[in-house]
Amino acid sequence: MSLLVVGSVAFDALETPFGKTDKIVGGSASFISLSSSYFVKPVNIVAVVGGDFQKSDIEKFQEHGIDTTGLQIRENEKSFFWSGRYFNDMNSRETLVTELNVLEDFDPIIPDSYQNCEYLMLGNLAPQVQRTVIERLQNRPKLIVMDTMNFWMDVAYKELLKTIALVDVISINDEEARQLSKEYSLVKAAKKILAMGPKYVIIKKGEHGALLFSNDDMFYAPALPLDEVFDPTGAGDTFVGGFIGYLAKYGEATFYNMKNAVIHGSAMASFCVEKFGTERLLNLSDREIEKRVQQFSRLVQF
Amino acid sequence: MSLLVVGSVAFDALETPFGKTDKIVGGSASFISLSSSYFVKPVNIVAVVGGDFQKSDIEKFQEHGIDTTGLQIRENEKSFFWSGRYFNDMNSRETLVTELNVLEDFDPIIPDSYQNCEYLMLGNLAPQVQRTVIERLQNRPKLIVMDTMNFWMDVAYKELLKTIALVDVISINDEEARQLSKEYSLVKAAKKILAMGPKYVIIKKGEHGALLFSNDDMFYAPALPLDEVFDPTGAGDTFVGGFIGYLAKYGEATFYNMKNAVIHGSAMASFCVEKFGTERLLNLSDREIEKRVQQFSRLVQF
Repeated sequence: MSLLVVGSVAFDALETPFGKTDKIVGGSASFISLSSSYFVKPVNIVAVVGGDFQKSDIEKFQEHGIDTTGLQIRENEKSFFWSGRYFNDMNSRETLVTELNVLEDFDPIIPDSYQNCEYLMLGNLAPQVQRTVIERLQNRPKLIVMDTMNFWMDVAYKELLKTIALVDVISINDEEARQLSKEYSLVKAAKKILAMGPKYVIIKKGEHGALLFSNDDMFYAPALPLDEVFDPTGAGDTFVGGFIGYLAKYGEATFYNMKNAVIHGSAMASFCVEKFGTERLLNLSDREIEKRVQQFSRLVQF
Repeated sequence: MSLLVVGSVAFDALETPFGKTDKIVGGSASFISLSSSYFVKPVNIVAVVGGDFQKSDIEKFQEHGIDTTGLQIRENEKSFFWSGRYFNDMNSRETLVTELNVLEDFDPIIPDSYQNCEYLMLGNLAPQVQRTVIERLQNRPKLIVMDTMNFWMDVAYKELLKTIALVDVISINDEEARQLSKEYSLVKAAKKILAMGPKYVIIKKGEHGALLFSNDDMFYAPALPLDEVFDPTGAGDTFVGGFIGYLAKYGEATFYNMKNAVIHGSAMASFCVEKFGTERLLNLSDREIEKRVQQFSRLVQF
């Protein structure tokens, strides 16, 4: 099943209690597409980078079955750059630098070869840009999943609501769900967000797992308790990449498949946090993923 | 199987965003014994109250199969009293009043009829008092479970360690586990606490569920996502009451039974928070409990 991923491909510079990095590959579309590539190929990507982005990094995407026809390269500009520092508990962080660069006026052009995609993953981007992607597809995909963040709730609330109304699944974290719905209880928050349009709401709770809601069902996926979280950057994108990758592989978006998709997304995220950036996502085997999924299964079985 | 519960029987005055109460029945032993009474009878209780404690409240315990032979009544003194206010998120609270009263010099006298109990639940109390109970039992119970709180880590750390070394299961919340172990990762924290003596560690995470650890196994029980948490007071005690009650009912303390005990404890706690204090625990049916356990089962099944 064909999957289209739209989002940022960027540079991150990270500082955690375990060390720090220079500019490494980051961005929502990078984590999402690498994660989903373990379930479905090709993964078609629409994003924009500057001339500073390495050819070798693009080749790494391609080696994972990611079609980069839709990756715009603006030679004379710079890639989106984010730098942040995580505090000891790894649950809070501060942003040191944000340089929008090429992302400031990103126009998501859909290559003809990407038309008729059946699964669309809208990674975190301005909601107007996310909506433009939907509008430019000649046929509505079978399933549209979107991710977003609190920033857009602050600066583009109305635009965000318009985009949310068009998608099937929205994936956000607990604080964002509370902000979006103005409800503290996540059950109430999910109900309000479902009323905004989506058929499914995923609320990510980091080390506490993820909740999946439909209008008449609910599922709680744990996160795997880990000895160490080395770098949480991209875990949410990796999660949703595994989620949509699994669905694109197995077809029907039933609640049953969605639950398994959430587990597979959680498994992928549990790998992501083991190393800096996308590093751990570059060398996984199907067997490792299957073993991790079995760990999740044992973890909750009673 | 005979169960002995030691802890506080007290008065609480509570303030939540949903309302406030005058003095109502609270205390660790109240929640624990009411919760466990749905699984095993009699529940033998050792605690102390003052002359201000109502005979009708003692009768309510008795109606639930709680043997109050070991409930000391000091006619001329006052019961332990705690007053607190919960903030909007229900996850944080402030203590308004703490009056130790009868609890200040509580001497846990074990009635002869309670000797040879097979299950011992040490509710939150000074660790020296908890240890005295173990010492006064002529035979070591088959299973000893203890609960404690950060207060004792601050003021009686060495005493606490001595008591922890004597028990089979310790039940504490995530912040307490971190404080006790000086580890942020709950996996590492559990390992350190297991090395202090207990064979099992339960880490309660409130709305995020509970983790059960042994030296070579791990289990994650979700909390039921609720529309509303009306009053979280006593939820942790209710949880551990359901936990030990289930084990006392089904006998063997295998990891398999412990997992089911954690689920039953979680189900009991999910009732507790629906009303003020012990109110919801006074009128449950076996059918309601079984239905709630099934909800937990569906919640994590994939």
